[in-house]
Amino acid sequence: MEKLAISKAALSRLPRYLEALRTLPDDGEYISAPALAKMLRLGEVQVRKDLAAVCGGGKPRCGYKREALIKKLEERLGCEKLTPAVLVGAGRLGRALLQYDEFERYGVKITAAFDINPDPKNGILPISSFEGYCAEHSVKLGIITVGEGSAQTVCDLMTENGIIAIWNFAPCILKAPDGVILQNENLALSLAHLNNQLRSII
Amino acid sequence: MEKLAISKAALSRLPRYLEALRTLPDDGEYISAPALAKMLRLGEVQVRKDLAAVCGGGKPRCGYKREALIKKLEERLGCEKLTPAVLVGAGRLGRALLQYDEFERYGVKITAAFDINPDPKNGILPISSFEGYCAEHSVKLGIITVGEGSAQTVCDLMTENGIIAIWNFAPCILKAPDGVILQNENLALSLAHLNNQLRSII
Repeated sequence: MEKLAISKAALSRLPRYLEALRTLPDDGEYISAPALAKMLRLGEVQVRKDLAAVCGGGKPRCGYKREALIKKLEERLGCEKLTPAVLVGAGRLGRALLQYDEFERYGVKITAAFDINPDPKNGILPISSFEGYCAEHSVKLGIITVGEGSAQTVCDLMTENGIIAIWNFAPCILKAPDGVILQNENLALSLAHLNNQLRSII
Repeated sequence: MEKLAISKAALSRLPRYLEALRTLPDDGEYISAPALAKMLRLGEVQVRKDLAAVCGGGKPRCGYKREALIKKLEERLGCEKLTPAVLVGAGRLGRALLQYDEFERYGVKITAAFDINPDPKNGILPISSFEGYCAEHSVKLGIITVGEGSAQTVCDLMTENGIIAIWNFAPCILKAPDGVILQNENLALSLAHLNNQLRSII
């Protein structure tokens, strides 16, 4: 797969384009950069630049062929070859993520979930089998949905078992070896941001 | 409360400072901008600028008094007067959010949850009581955790009942009247972003 130079910021917008293209009513062969920009409340110049990096130039006055653009975005996002991921912590949030069926559309499949309280009926494995699973399946991506108190222990367990990209939902700052990509998802921060915007207008 | 001019981007970093300060081991009266910057992997200049907008200048060679800085950040984020929020859609994700105890630390309290399948034992009210509840409590903030198919209906219901800030977890693009702040939280996008970074290094 050809990998064009693309900034991290642009990369993070690609799933949004893909989402918009997929949710668009199927009312035409072409989609224009301005139409996409308007839909996503982004700047036209930015959208043009992003799409050019993924799919080259569009057809003048028409834009991009919708199906071809979707295909290119899927390729770039790796939807064709799913990355396996493991989740540790099968509380409500963990189970909500397991049930969430959107991840595969974006190139990731949660292939196993672990907890200190296993629940075989629902596919939750004992944490004692984590090491063996990761080794057998060469898992590189881990999701932490345990509480604050256990998150660092789980993070250590993951990095010791070859995981190099971690999506952390615990509301704390984790330490990981250099080279490990750590992405924190603090839902409270998102809500705080919305609350701030709300307070500025009422 | 004094409102200093502060950019949206800076505002969105304030909860991260607050989080870092709260999770720091309580090992000193002062915290410096460089220490905070390192902890959060942000630029020093940016952190200095953000903190100056919230708390004025620090003490040379010492930094900011930790407790005073926390207090100022809490004031700025509105933690002292909680914004009430309502949630519609009490599936796994909705229930996970209801259980999440971090929101109040960031100025928001989910005061009621609604579903077409009410569950009074767990505080889930029937959607038929939504209108009355919003009117009685002057709710301005709503959280959508229903599926894609019902999200627009719920969004309409919210805006018709005075809600002007919406946090949407459904993986679709919603339409709301001008003036309504719509914040989409597509968890798949976050994971896609992490997956992209991972793919670039393996």
